[in-house]
Amino acid sequence: MDRINDYITDNKERFLNELMDLLRIPSVSADPKYKGDVLKTAEEVKKRLIEAGADHVEVCSTAGYPIVYGEKMVDPSLPTVLVYGHYDVQPPDPIDLWDSPPFEPVIKKTEIHPEGAIFARGSCDDKGQMYMHVKAFELMMKTNSLACNVKFMIEGEEEVGSENLGVYVNANKEKLKADVILISDTGIIANDVPSVTVGLRGLSYLEVEVTGPNRDLHSGLYGGAVANPINILCEMIAKLKDENNHITIPGFYDDVIELSQEERAEMAKAPFSLDKYKKSIDISDIHGETGYSTNERTSIRPTLDVNGIWGGYTGEGAKTVIPSKAFAKISMRLVPSQNNHKITQLFTDYFTKIAPPSVKVKVMPHHGGNAVVTPSDSAAYMAVSKAMNDTFGKKPIPVRSGGSIPIVALFKDVLGLDSVMMGFGLDSDAIHSPNEHYGVFNYFKGIQTIPLFYKYFAEINAQENKNSATLIASK
Amino acid sequence: MDRINDYITDNKERFLNELMDLLRIPSVSADPKYKGDVLKTAEEVKKRLIEAGADHVEVCSTAGYPIVYGEKMVDPSLPTVLVYGHYDVQPPDPIDLWDSPPFEPVIKKTEIHPEGAIFARGSCDDKGQMYMHVKAFELMMKTNSLACNVKFMIEGEEEVGSENLGVYVNANKEKLKADVILISDTGIIANDVPSVTVGLRGLSYLEVEVTGPNRDLHSGLYGGAVANPINILCEMIAKLKDENNHITIPGFYDDVIELSQEERAEMAKAPFSLDKYKKSIDISDIHGETGYSTNERTSIRPTLDVNGIWGGYTGEGAKTVIPSKAFAKISMRLVPSQNNHKITQLFTDYFTKIAPPSVKVKVMPHHGGNAVVTPSDSAAYMAVSKAMNDTFGKKPIPVRSGGSIPIVALFKDVLGLDSVMMGFGLDSDAIHSPNEHYGVFNYFKGIQTIPLFYKYFAEINAQENKNSATLIASK
Repeated sequence: MDRINDYITDNKERFLNELMDLLRIPSVSADPKYKGDVLKTAEEVKKRLIEAGADHVEVCSTAGYPIVYGEKMVDPSLPTVLVYGHYDVQPPDPIDLWDSPPFEPVIKKTEIHPEGAIFARGSCDDKGQMYMHVKAFELMMKTNSLACNVKFMIEGEEEVGSENLGVYVNANKEKLKADVILISDTGIIANDVPSVTVGLRGLSYLEVEVTGPNRDLHSGLYGGAVANPINILCEMIAKLKDENNHITIPGFYDDVIELSQEERAEMAKAPFSLDKYKKSIDISDIHGETGYSTNERTSIRPTLDVNGIWGGYTGEGAKTVIPSKAFAKISMRLVPSQNNHKITQLFTDYFTKIAPPSVKVKVMPHHGGNAVVTPSDSAAYMAVSKAMNDTFGKKPIPVRSGGSIPIVALFKDVLGLDSVMMGFGLDSDAIHSPNEHYGVFNYFKGIQTIPLFYKYFAEINAQENKNSATLIASK
Repeated sequence: MDRINDYITDNKERFLNELMDLLRIPSVSADPKYKGDVLKTAEEVKKRLIEAGADHVEVCSTAGYPIVYGEKMVDPSLPTVLVYGHYDVQPPDPIDLWDSPPFEPVIKKTEIHPEGAIFARGSCDDKGQMYMHVKAFELMMKTNSLACNVKFMIEGEEEVGSENLGVYVNANKEKLKADVILISDTGIIANDVPSVTVGLRGLSYLEVEVTGPNRDLHSGLYGGAVANPINILCEMIAKLKDENNHITIPGFYDDVIELSQEERAEMAKAPFSLDKYKKSIDISDIHGETGYSTNERTSIRPTLDVNGIWGGYTGEGAKTVIPSKAFAKISMRLVPSQNNHKITQLFTDYFTKIAPPSVKVKVMPHHGGNAVVTPSDSAAYMAVSKAMNDTFGKKPIPVRSGGSIPIVALFKDVLGLDSVMMGFGLDSDAIHSPNEHYGVFNYFKGIQTIPLFYKYFAEINAQENKNSATLIASK
């Protein structure tokens, strides 16, 4: 631990500057206009992995953005950790709500981050968290303390659904062989309340288009006689939930696993202040499915949110128009056992069915993934728990998160591997929002914790191997 | 009539070119970025009025865009016609749906306009129709046939609610004294079915803002527990109408005058083909208030339409965000006896009331006006009827239009004057839409009909004066 801390202290400035350089490249995967920047970021990640000491580093082409691969195999008898992360970022919109430009990182102190936080798109999600692994790897290489074999798989399409990662993983099962997948793309409850994510929701993301007349019409001449696609879209969206905020799509809840009263009581023990929660986002009241608590609503229950809507005249002033079309982006968060393809189909069927005959409706699936629950009694979980206990001074709490990392289910299916989600972000980091930031404390806490995870994971594995060898010998 | 036709034939090219020049100035009053162009258009209209022979032409400042005034008083014993029109135009959005640039007028032939139509924003609404009056005035001056005194009042804020026209009219009652107001800002049923608008709907136009959390949130971490302002806005909009498309705002219909069965039967005689109507805008079905026909829905019934909606992520790809805010522009068309201020208040009260406690709601009134019904037995109406009978070869049909020209009610209130709405546009002219156009036939039919209106209006007035003089003499 001293060796780790010394190395971090000696290289603190450089570790920060390298991340800031990476954040300056606007690698927005959702918007084709940033294509050159996304590709440039992949090359940059490759360069950083080589500099840190990785072997066989390559930028692997896919049908979309490439995956950066690298590895360090120190000893076949040691366990292998496969590190997953992503170098692409969310679009910066709405750009005018940023206090500083999204791709010009600056460190500013905040109430939650007295040591400062790096403000930039991707600082937390996921460049900052991904880069902790590159720097922790450099540290272990330079201090001769790499306790496991390591493989890196850093993709560029996480924010648009990881469409080509599945193809890559399926085609490279042998190359990606490992004992565990280590991901830092989640968070902790607070800087003094460490936690590990042991569950993630799935996702089904769609775009809908409602067409009324074949051209924009004057609302005075046609208003009242012709279906207005905005009004209709609103009515259709309203029909997706009932008065209890229960989703009305037939079959939607069929596969949802209901937790037992005991499990719910256990969950309710997690520290949570409704007042602080409301205050943190300035709302007078919470809003959700009747019969469930806020923590349940964001973890064990599926949801449906409109993420974007547009149609008609949205400029300054007034225009009395009935537009030809109205659009919405709608996503559903799914819980274990719900299948995202099935849910996408159920949504499509229902949304098409509730459309009145006066409009035409198109439903275009974007992307999705299934929910996962990862074990909290595995060697990897125990290693995380011990590592965090060392660096935070207390054991982390296992929590289920409302977010989705669809590829965790994919890794389990294709590679047969569990993932361990050791993230260091905070809910208040504003990922996917203007003014995304990542605490300097959190960045270095990650770099400090990761080598300890490797150490404990190797130790626990060795112990388990010894135990099973003893078991075999005693037979 | 021959003199009129000869003058038009001799000046046809010039009349078209002058209008095209006027259409090249993008006088969009709703968008501040066009401010210079709107002001330039006012100066241009002033110049054209002077060239046509008007006296005392001036660009009158207001708190917003100026009003162009001009007059020609030939004889105090003759009746005075006050011509109203507007030189501002609707925004051109969505600009990518235009086949040719909105401010680069071109003449193209269409099925409805075999003689060609001028494609440009404002070609019909209202630069083209307004300019017919300038050219008809020139014609009467040059052919020494101006049969009435004439005053021009051409404003630049019609498309944004004529906010400053009321102030101007109130301040200039003496100057604006006239016998009738003549407006060409409406249409005819078809080029072989002339009609005169004798009723207009009122308008209440508002913008609403729904705020959930104080910043954009990650829909995975917060989804299901926090009010999503887009979902809420949709639900609130859906609540504005019931399953019969009846508006649910309490008190909304209180002042609506229901027509008698006889009146409705009379209305139903107007030529109308539902098949053609549906085909013209490519809809499978009409959509409106139960119990009323399409023509009734667009004329004698009030309506509520969302004219624009926006919120969240609307770019390419996917962003899993719960936005902080969602917005909509909503307008209601009103029928006689409904007061626009009262309706605006009823809407505001109801919309605020139906908001759940988890959001904050703002309602911002834009502009409005009351509905009007103008007499179809006045001297002015008779003059229009005779003039159109001469130029179209058949008497025009009196019709009520679904559109709104709020200032008609204002003129009646403040100046005590009835307006006569002698418009020459067609429903298919796509006003307020991409590819707005105005038939060359219609433009010249207007220039041809207007002088005849002056002639008959003077004659009928003289006859009425004689009759009343005889009446007095015989007492």
